Amino acid sequence: MNAPSVSYSITVRLEVPAVGGGVGQLTMAVEQAGGAITALDVTRSGHERLSIDVTCAARDTDHADQLVGVMRSVPGVVIGKVSDRTFLMHLGGKIEMNAKHPIRNRDDLSMIYTPGVARICNAIAKNPEDARRLTIKRNSVAVITDGSAVLGLGNIGPKAALPVMEGKAALFKRFAEIDAWPLCLDTQDVDEIINVVKAVAPGFAGINLEDISAPRCFEIEARLREQLDIPVFHDDQHGTAIVVLAALYNALRVVGKELSKIRIVMSGAGAAGTAIIKLLLAAGATDVVVADIAGVVHRGRDGLAGELAWLADHTNRLGLTGTLSDAIDGADVFIGVSAPGVLTGADVQRMADKAIVFALANPEPEIDPAVAMEYAEVVATGRSDFPNQINNVLAFPGVFRGLLDARSTEVTTPMLIAAARALAGVVTDEELNAAYITPSVFHADVHHAVATAVRQAAGGGLDAVAADGTLEAATSDG
Amino acid sequence: MNAPSVSYSITVRLEVPAVGGGVGQLTMAVEQAGGAITALDVTRSGHERLSIDVTCAARDTDHADQLVGVMRSVPGVVIGKVSDRTFLMHLGGKIEMNAKHPIRNRDDLSMIYTPGVARICNAIAKNPEDARRLTIKRNSVAVITDGSAVLGLGNIGPKAALPVMEGKAALFKRFAEIDAWPLCLDTQDVDEIINVVKAVAPGFAGINLEDISAPRCFEIEARLREQLDIPVFHDDQHGTAIVVLAALYNALRVVGKELSKIRIVMSGAGAAGTAIIKLLLAAGATDVVVADIAGVVHRGRDGLAGELAWLADHTNRLGLTGTLSDAIDGADVFIGVSAPGVLTGADVQRMADKAIVFALANPEPEIDPAVAMEYAEVVATGRSDFPNQINNVLAFPGVFRGLLDARSTEVTTPMLIAAARALAGVVTDEELNAAYITPSVFHADVHHAVATAVRQAAGGGLDAVAADGTLEAATSDG
Repeated sequence: MNAPSVSYSITVRLEVPAVGGGVGQLTMAVEQAGGAITALDVTRSGHERLSIDVTCAARDTDHADQLVGVMRSVPGVVIGKVSDRTFLMHLGGKIEMNAKHPIRNRDDLSMIYTPGVARICNAIAKNPEDARRLTIKRNSVAVITDGSAVLGLGNIGPKAALPVMEGKAALFKRFAEIDAWPLCLDTQDVDEIINVVKAVAPGFAGINLEDISAPRCFEIEARLREQLDIPVFHDDQHGTAIVVLAALYNALRVVGKELSKIRIVMSGAGAAGTAIIKLLLAAGATDVVVADIAGVVHRGRDGLAGELAWLADHTNRLGLTGTLSDAIDGADVFIGVSAPGVLTGADVQRMADKAIVFALANPEPEIDPAVAMEYAEVVATGRSDFPNQINNVLAFPGVFRGLLDARSTEVTTPMLIAAARALAGVVTDEELNAAYITPSVFHADVHHAVATAVRQAAGGGLDAVAADGTLEAATSDG
Repeated sequence: MNAPSVSYSITVRLEVPAVGGGVGQLTMAVEQAGGAITALDVTRSGHERLSIDVTCAARDTDHADQLVGVMRSVPGVVIGKVSDRTFLMHLGGKIEMNAKHPIRNRDDLSMIYTPGVARICNAIAKNPEDARRLTIKRNSVAVITDGSAVLGLGNIGPKAALPVMEGKAALFKRFAEIDAWPLCLDTQDVDEIINVVKAVAPGFAGINLEDISAPRCFEIEARLREQLDIPVFHDDQHGTAIVVLAALYNALRVVGKELSKIRIVMSGAGAAGTAIIKLLLAAGATDVVVADIAGVVHRGRDGLAGELAWLADHTNRLGLTGTLSDAIDGADVFIGVSAPGVLTGADVQRMADKAIVFALANPEPEIDPAVAMEYAEVVATGRSDFPNQINNVLAFPGVFRGLLDARSTEVTTPMLIAAARALAGVVTDEELNAAYITPSVFHADVHHAVATAVRQAAGGGLDAVAADGTLEAATSDG
């Protein structure tokens, strides 16, 4: 059973008798029913009755309903409005657009808008590269989805995807001071998506593709990278790959093994799985085997095409066949980006000594982490309620900060590897252990370290950045 | 010669001897050269030298250079950095994206992003209309251009158009609390523009088309209105038309004439001209004649097509031919949205008694307003340095606020007329005179009055709006 979670937190406005221990009965009842009260705010008080907002975390929505029922059953309690904290935070959206300068009078207006703005337009028309200096293009990223593979929810469409993209934009700002705006597209046609992204590109310094289903995501990204002069990054692929590689670097530090000498068995060959394998190989892994729903991927398998054919050509050097369970014998590392329960404790038992298990399927991992921990030395998941969370938020803000600061026109594999190394390096030798291979997303150094590594890999000096803030940069158009 | 303007304001960092009246000589020299000093900030002081930031307004960039030369020639003055206030305000862009809620810890993260956000996605997937309640779609407008007709600068392309679109977004926020984001498109193909706008529509509650050249703008707007379920508004057409109609309502109040009985002669049949004529006719004008570069538009003219053919069919009931100057005889109103100098003082002299002249070409009007004022009763321009400025900023923020609050799916002519009436009504009978027919954009009532009128014309009650803020709206997905 899950623990109560703040993401299922409700606030119940209720009245309770002021005397006779009503409040005590209420809190006891909620806690006996498995709820966790996080706040009691008295909104009105009289001699006989108290009006209170009770905020408590539930396990899920059914449990939240149950808790309201429990409160209602306390003698003398009258339930008023019930609100849901997560829904409340989403009312009217999570992001907003703001002007950086006040518009107080005609003078302000004449600089920010007409007639003054015409001089800025002319300057950019003369030298288009100045758009990076004199407009939001300096610092903006488009977060683009077609809603075809949103979280684990599937093809729920562009409107239902919007809350995720807004959240992403909020994280971009929080962790990397980037101004991102969500664009949720009303098309799932590959050519149309490419045309739309190309068309909106002039106003942005980078494109973050998000929650686009495989294999369409591969073609969309590849073609956009070819045709655009700004970096294009599909976070579900490369964000995940960077964090997995970083976590693996640190897990290998813990167990004292080398990336070039280990056997890695993967489950899942979708967007994330494919990107992870490619990055592992580029980083020096030599022995990688991947299994998908049809078993181990090998050259002789029927129906290989596209990325899967590439994987068959570049992995499985021993030519293994059969199932994931067949391939796991003696493996040093298991990385799952697939489905719940595909790995058993017995499978992990057959892995090499000091095994590493990354079970990243969300919310239910490939193997119960408690079971995996019985046999493996290091275990990581995608969940926040276990140690070693593999979380994309560790990568994408810093990656884009680095790309933007370097004014990069592309994303390259060396940049991704540099990001992973930097992320791994945030965990010091003193801090490192089997339960701490990834830092918290709130760690003060994470995003700056990743940004610096990516900027340097992109060949961008700090000068290019600093120059933007000086008076000298603000020369006139005369 | 223009007066010094803050939109050509520079800040000069310089050193001057602390004794001997150096500062006095400096300010005198600048003022004798026609500059207007607006600030003197001492940044460092010693016994012998002062370091000062001198901010002064110039007439244009050449004049700014001249002023720097004048300062340099003052004995003992050493010029340092010269910066340009308008350029400084544009460094890094004028807008930003912000998150509405702080992300301080894992609890915040789990509500704003995963796993909590999945519940919001599910709620919208179940009921797509909830996107208006639980996402930025509630309050967001896309400001879209292809850069083909930017201000008076022409086809300068999407990057050079971005400063205008950012300024527009800033105005949307300042005057109507709307979150707008600029999209500057890298295509000028009508079909492609339509496809792009349709594709990005799910994340927005309205589309503001901007600075798209005629006649392409007519087709783009018409087809988008047909195909989208959110309002589409080409500001260069309808924003201008609303403000012109409002100003005309008030000018007619001043001279005591009626819209249905007057003769209106227009110069210019582009985007703005066409929209103005259509709105005038819809509002009850009966006698409108329009001239363009080829003379008066009439049914017998060669080469009529598209909107021009429509105009020929619906205006010029007397069947006039010839030039603008031929048509102006006895006209009550002249409205120019064309080119500098097409109207002479002699033309205005031949107009009817108590003539009204709107000379809106920018920055140089169809007739010098000082000349027009000799013969006309009411004169208006598009410029901020004469009375009666016709400025789109009076209309578009309130119009969209009204459309969004009503959750309108369209923009209709009755809404435009309601907006014009409301805007005119902001000027009270006590305030009204020939030099005050339009309120300031900073007038406290303008945008709210326009928004209310549009919302009511769109059939939206205030309830629909208020409900969004209550706890009840935040019911769970359970």
